[in-house]
Amino acid sequence: MNIEPVAHIYTDFPAKFGLPRQSGLINGLKGRIVFEPPFRNPESVRGLSEFSHIWLLWDFSMAHRKGFCATACPPRLGGKTHMGIWATRSPFRPNSIGLSSVRLDRVELTDEGPVLWVSGIDMTDGTPVYDIKPYIRYDCHPDAVDGYVEHTECHSLRVQDPDGLIDALDIGDERKQALREVLSQDPRPQYDADDIGNRRYGFYFMDLDVRFRVRGDILEVCEIVTAVL
Amino acid sequence: MNIEPVAHIYTDFPAKFGLPRQSGLINGLKGRIVFEPPFRNPESVRGLSEFSHIWLLWDFSMAHRKGFCATACPPRLGGKTHMGIWATRSPFRPNSIGLSSVRLDRVELTDEGPVLWVSGIDMTDGTPVYDIKPYIRYDCHPDAVDGYVEHTECHSLRVQDPDGLIDALDIGDERKQALREVLSQDPRPQYDADDIGNRRYGFYFMDLDVRFRVRGDILEVCEIVTAVL
Repeated sequence: MNIEPVAHIYTDFPAKFGLPRQSGLINGLKGRIVFEPPFRNPESVRGLSEFSHIWLLWDFSMAHRKGFCATACPPRLGGKTHMGIWATRSPFRPNSIGLSSVRLDRVELTDEGPVLWVSGIDMTDGTPVYDIKPYIRYDCHPDAVDGYVEHTECHSLRVQDPDGLIDALDIGDERKQALREVLSQDPRPQYDADDIGNRRYGFYFMDLDVRFRVRGDILEVCEIVTAVL
Repeated sequence: MNIEPVAHIYTDFPAKFGLPRQSGLINGLKGRIVFEPPFRNPESVRGLSEFSHIWLLWDFSMAHRKGFCATACPPRLGGKTHMGIWATRSPFRPNSIGLSSVRLDRVELTDEGPVLWVSGIDMTDGTPVYDIKPYIRYDCHPDAVDGYVEHTECHSLRVQDPDGLIDALDIGDERKQALREVLSQDPRPQYDADDIGNRRYGFYFMDLDVRFRVRGDILEVCEIVTAVL
């Protein structure tokens, strides 16, 4: 079956580094969903603003890979333990479709069709969106047992910013807080868990190149410069 | 993007009539997921049996329709009220992908690859499956507000079977109970809500043709015969 994007989502992540590993983890990370021209019909969103959450089916466009790999290594297991691909949410799957639930903040009717403003995103800027569905009560299973997810805490880091680099940014308080949360969730590749602080890491947030290092459970912000993207 | 089935799911519904309108509504409705030959690798399900629920992304293969319709009429609103397509879970959407959460009962390793046994299905027999993902805690939003879904009760019918037609079936107690629940959830097209019992309806369950009529909130089983499919 051939599927075509119905929309694109615009976020603060030009690249996949730094992205939260699931949706809904950082409410301060916002997204703006703009429909493709054939779908810019205000009728298509009638009743949608009455829902607090929506599902997005989207393209793992930064993680296309040929061939079938039967296992993947979830970051929360340290990035070295192989689990069956169907037991993970890894992007490297036969059909490259991501599933995220995000908070629907606002439905705006513009001259270019409806625009959906959402919170808690986990996708890069410009990601193609294949479907949008309302989140309904039947999607919620509070009794669900989620295997290794249940037994492993997502570790978090204490963020230190001795030079006040984040505070000095002109990006508004909500984005500053979101950036601190992104850092606290440890945006390193997980296989560097034995870090002793020698290595510098970086990721892009908006038009910023954010550099940091980690020693134990302390993350130190080293440098934030305007990125050359 | 081109997507290919990774598996098919086999259920008791040869056609879409009678299907529950969401997944998880009738636990007695079972499904068996069999992978396509390229994906029959036991490694691909490593760790999966530790999850109680899984997501299925699947093809609304019984409801393909050309062209974009911006609205749909949800059955729970009586089937006559138009809502924006993105505010519904209607199958008639630009990319024909269904999203269901089902209970994972068992992972069986067979000579033909892994087989997944699930409960609470809402798809027809032989439906193509594009993706299987574990249900994780971040998918559950107990505080979600679900618009018109919240304000409308799914009405249910009292099932009468004066001739004991269901009891006489040789399909096991669990399937008999599931069939009664299918009937109680009113498998009529919703636009026949003013029924006065003159009309007979039918649907297929396994190899059975189940006929019934409805007067008010009473559903009466009229006839159950072996179907000529």
